[in-house]
Amino acid sequence: MTYHTFTESRLRDFTKSIFLKMTCSEEHAELATDVLIKSDLRGIDSHGVARLTGYVRLWEKGRINSKPNIKIVHETPTTATIDGDAGLGLVVAPYAMKVALEKAEKYGSGWVSVRNSNHFGIAAYHTLMAVEKEMIGFAMTNASPLVAPTFANERLLGTNPMCYAFPAGKYPPVIVDMATSAAANGKLEIAQRMAKPVPDGWIQDAAGNPSTDPHELKKGGSLLPLGSDRDHGSHKGFGLSATVDILSAVLSGANYGPWVPPFVAFMEPSDNPVGLGIGHFLGAMRVDGFRPIDEFKSHLDNWIERFSSAKQISEDQKVIIPGQPEFDAEQERSANGIPLIDEVCKDLNGIALKLGVQPLF
Amino acid sequence: MTYHTFTESRLRDFTKSIFLKMTCSEEHAELATDVLIKSDLRGIDSHGVARLTGYVRLWEKGRINSKPNIKIVHETPTTATIDGDAGLGLVVAPYAMKVALEKAEKYGSGWVSVRNSNHFGIAAYHTLMAVEKEMIGFAMTNASPLVAPTFANERLLGTNPMCYAFPAGKYPPVIVDMATSAAANGKLEIAQRMAKPVPDGWIQDAAGNPSTDPHELKKGGSLLPLGSDRDHGSHKGFGLSATVDILSAVLSGANYGPWVPPFVAFMEPSDNPVGLGIGHFLGAMRVDGFRPIDEFKSHLDNWIERFSSAKQISEDQKVIIPGQPEFDAEQERSANGIPLIDEVCKDLNGIALKLGVQPLF
Repeated sequence: MTYHTFTESRLRDFTKSIFLKMTCSEEHAELATDVLIKSDLRGIDSHGVARLTGYVRLWEKGRINSKPNIKIVHETPTTATIDGDAGLGLVVAPYAMKVALEKAEKYGSGWVSVRNSNHFGIAAYHTLMAVEKEMIGFAMTNASPLVAPTFANERLLGTNPMCYAFPAGKYPPVIVDMATSAAANGKLEIAQRMAKPVPDGWIQDAAGNPSTDPHELKKGGSLLPLGSDRDHGSHKGFGLSATVDILSAVLSGANYGPWVPPFVAFMEPSDNPVGLGIGHFLGAMRVDGFRPIDEFKSHLDNWIERFSSAKQISEDQKVIIPGQPEFDAEQERSANGIPLIDEVCKDLNGIALKLGVQPLF
Repeated sequence: MTYHTFTESRLRDFTKSIFLKMTCSEEHAELATDVLIKSDLRGIDSHGVARLTGYVRLWEKGRINSKPNIKIVHETPTTATIDGDAGLGLVVAPYAMKVALEKAEKYGSGWVSVRNSNHFGIAAYHTLMAVEKEMIGFAMTNASPLVAPTFANERLLGTNPMCYAFPAGKYPPVIVDMATSAAANGKLEIAQRMAKPVPDGWIQDAAGNPSTDPHELKKGGSLLPLGSDRDHGSHKGFGLSATVDILSAVLSGANYGPWVPPFVAFMEPSDNPVGLGIGHFLGAMRVDGFRPIDEFKSHLDNWIERFSSAKQISEDQKVIIPGQPEFDAEQERSANGIPLIDEVCKDLNGIALKLGVQPLF
């Protein structure tokens, strides 16, 4: 595969100019750019600028509102529901997290359920906002239906990620950021592009049979929940995904389950929606609401040291502390630039041309 | 296997009298009994009265304090840390959940991290306390180390369950209550008793190789995280388990990871502990902190209906709504009694004899 490498600032300028062309405000363009670039820096290529064309197409279709009036529609001292007014999730979710942080600042914790939003980028971006304030961050979102519950031959759930983030002392924060499906959709897309079979337990075909052909998903197959099959706990993956769906959408008044609008412009949303847009759930808790922050950090450092020095099965594979690989990628890419595959660059140059922005090259 | 069936009230009286003999107060004996019986009623035999002998043995060893002075050691309006004073988790966790509920009543949400506790029974008991008040319940606990993180050949985590519970309208509450390991330890114990192999992906042997022999766990092997191996997302199961460990213990000042004291009297706790006892994390959020309760319930009912009528792969297997099988068991066993296997009855009669309580038969 051919890669082109860009400095962070080059990619930032490019991305921001696209959002500005989508008639986003200066502030929103800046923020949305920051979320996407953070993803690329952290090595989550599937959620970075590669998604920009998708956002543009949804905006062209009128399914993303570039000038949303984001507002709190219901609240208590520590809870709130926010209506994203069909805005970019990249903007709506940080707004919601700010509300959660303000509540946590005052009362110890803050929780926000969001409706009428769109794809919010990497969950870790939002939880890191909490970590910066020495809080524990929570973020979840539901997503377009691709995953079949255990025993079902129907896509009823998204890859519905959960993210938990904890501030450490001398180490990077511990960040668990995971799809609740056996494999993230991005991994399947890579396999499709490379025309390689995927491990069993990732997908089933249109008849509900196990399959290793990544193209089955396009022929009516489904992704499988974490755990893959009943024997290995797929009902748990289903339960986690259900939890995300309920907290993000049943609680906020967004669409849930099969009603979640597809995150692609060529597929129409349900004409019989049960709510507004997609849903997120964000939260923050002050660490010092439980124990002094220095105590917590020093014990979390100890936790990290103990787990990363665990006895290894194989000499060349250490236990990976959640969040460490992404932190390392961020260090490396901040210094050396962000590589994009040729296909993504062409896509980006296509929208640049269309919107009258200077292409990447 | 031979079963003996007891009425709920017979088993309740017996259990309470054992706790009273352990010098628990009337109130604590009643509460601890309620937690265990609820487990048996809900069909979770591994966490019910079958565990009573284990509690007695730990009490005899001085590792369970039957007269704990449970107290809040740190708090904000919506967060608290509770010290369980080495009491029964069956008593400490409901106390902590009550604190969370009071905070939620007043501020919308309440969160309690608990240290210096012991095994807290089924997580669902505690989250149901929230559901009864039309709140969403959260409960987690860390546990004796049995699970190896991905790539490790060492038991560093417990089966660390997570539980989320949501009140529905015309249907039973949705309750996701799951070990974050591929299989719960109880399932392994059943396989050991029946001398049957377990599915691959549940355990590894002492060298870190995959195994299907349930006895490997006793020879230095480990349980595997949900996801089973790296290809199938075991790093996600590890991440979830880590989240439980951090929220329950690093946050509260309990023992975490390999330092968690074993829940068996014949194994000694670490002589170099990093905290006090084991840890839990409990929380509650008012549903009406986000949207009116009736709206939430009617949408959750709709969610339940849509998922339970999902297109089936096989005619004889419907999608199971989390919490439904346990609800059904509770209806059935409340009416027809609780079956206990002969082995458990003998154990219970053994402690009855020792403590001077009328045996079961």
